Amino acid sequence: MHVADRLQAAVEASGSLACVGLDPRPALLPPFLRQRALTEHGDTPRAVATAFLAFNQAIIDAIAGHCAAVKPQMACYEAYGAEGWRCLAETIAHARDRGLEVILDGKRNDIGSSAAHYADMAFAGPPGLAGPRLPGLGGDWLTVNGWLGSDGLTPFLSDPPGDRGVFVLVRTSNPGGAEIQQLALAGGGNVAGAMADRVAGWAADRLGHRGLADVGAVVGATHPEEARALRQAMPDSWFLVPGYGAQGAGAADALAGRRTLDGGGVIVNNSRGIIGAWQHTDVRWAEDDWAGAARAALETMNRDLASAR
Amino acid sequence: MHVADRLQAAVEASGSLACVGLDPRPALLPPFLRQRALTEHGDTPRAVATAFLAFNQAIIDAIAGHCAAVKPQMACYEAYGAEGWRCLAETIAHARDRGLEVILDGKRNDIGSSAAHYADMAFAGPPGLAGPRLPGLGGDWLTVNGWLGSDGLTPFLSDPPGDRGVFVLVRTSNPGGAEIQQLALAGGGNVAGAMADRVAGWAADRLGHRGLADVGAVVGATHPEEARALRQAMPDSWFLVPGYGAQGAGAADALAGRRTLDGGGVIVNNSRGIIGAWQHTDVRWAEDDWAGAARAALETMNRDLASAR
Repeated sequence: MHVADRLQAAVEASGSLACVGLDPRPALLPPFLRQRALTEHGDTPRAVATAFLAFNQAIIDAIAGHCAAVKPQMACYEAYGAEGWRCLAETIAHARDRGLEVILDGKRNDIGSSAAHYADMAFAGPPGLAGPRLPGLGGDWLTVNGWLGSDGLTPFLSDPPGDRGVFVLVRTSNPGGAEIQQLALAGGGNVAGAMADRVAGWAADRLGHRGLADVGAVVGATHPEEARALRQAMPDSWFLVPGYGAQGAGAADALAGRRTLDGGGVIVNNSRGIIGAWQHTDVRWAEDDWAGAARAALETMNRDLASAR
Repeated sequence: MHVADRLQAAVEASGSLACVGLDPRPALLPPFLRQRALTEHGDTPRAVATAFLAFNQAIIDAIAGHCAAVKPQMACYEAYGAEGWRCLAETIAHARDRGLEVILDGKRNDIGSSAAHYADMAFAGPPGLAGPRLPGLGGDWLTVNGWLGSDGLTPFLSDPPGDRGVFVLVRTSNPGGAEIQQLALAGGGNVAGAMADRVAGWAADRLGHRGLADVGAVVGATHPEEARALRQAMPDSWFLVPGYGAQGAGAADALAGRRTLDGGGVIVNNSRGIIGAWQHTDVRWAEDDWAGAARAALETMNRDLASAR
């Protein structure tokens, strides 16, 4: 099935527009999980990776069926080197086993030959020494940075379309995002708008049966009025929307970029608000029920998004 | 020593403005090296990583003292997962042992909290479970993408300045680089120029004793007239210049962005032209002397750069 149709099917099966960001870090781990890994492995990359994986797997089991996708932040894993990488691969495999779409958040970018290596990494795997491909991470989507233009982007796309997808950074949710992205152009519009036009060009003729393409866009929830304008420029792209929750945006803001046609085409990410819920919710959670807290926070988010829809 | 001073010292000690790109891929390996790894490990990620490391170490030994820096392309390594990552770490350690400055070519970028994880990865290492830092890759410089603005950039910088450096992608050497980077702005200039102005702002007050900052810029050799203009905008930044050799630019083009003050501030990368020289030079090299071929190609490049200087 075309990757954009798979994401739509995941939204419909779960009844959720949510994507859960799997961004583990030591400070988010329940103390007993940290302690267990320290006892087994000392204070090593393996200890961190072991604790991250146990943390992630329980969350994935709890949220599967209640969200459309998960989004591992690659920076959190690769900080721990080879051990972190193994944890990332096992996290992805577990999420796929549970039927979740996987959006790899790597924001990769390079000239064509190197972009092709990144695509091998994220999706189907690189060439071996004797010819056949070795395993890749097997992600469904990868976030990418479009600064290098078309020949840096196309190596990420499958031929024929739809085996895998990308989300291009168009308008990010962070305070500094405006510095380059909001510069006004001599020809009208701004830089983010020009990137949106590129996305629309890349997405053309790459639609699945449900009318959405394998080239999507990252459009932050913190700029709802811009999201509405960017939807006009990119009618056929999934929007991956960061910034809901911890970064301050509400459900109506997060859904501002939905398609006028059917109210869809948007998936809303939440990372710390879900996986860190055991630390933050009003209800007092036992520290060994971080996954239950994540599930409860996700259900609250789902209701919030549904009421704004 | 401030990282910008270290790079200057490496240029002076080697008498070379060259940076050697360590971008291994199976097709660049001599057949007997591929075969040996296949015999030992089968067609596995470990076989690839073992062959890459042997390939890199011999090249590093041959070029140390004759170039200023090496630049591993992270995409080539991480395509092979945890094994590739270990090969990258050991390649970096070997280069540092041989006194080479290490520029990690990762083009990383993200919002602040994730950018901080990437910085941990590239430089001093991430927090462990009990507090102290675990090992990072120990690079001297990392290439980064400035699309997310200041709060995405500053986590990569050390406080106080100079422990490590970044090269921000300002004007890339690839054909599609112009699509966004060369858009004309309403306020005059173009997007790459605006990024250059940001770089100059980030570099301010971060100079070493030799007058160069720990915030540098990637400025492709394929656009020499632009490089001269960008030098005006970024007087205090090292330029990392890709595009020499395989991408078609000559020595004069590559040096177009040097400082008018002292003719310095530029380091020129060559990847395939050096590490793939055993396949391409007119002289017939024995396949077990890929490192000798790399050294000879580097010496030719050094003469070419010196004559254009």
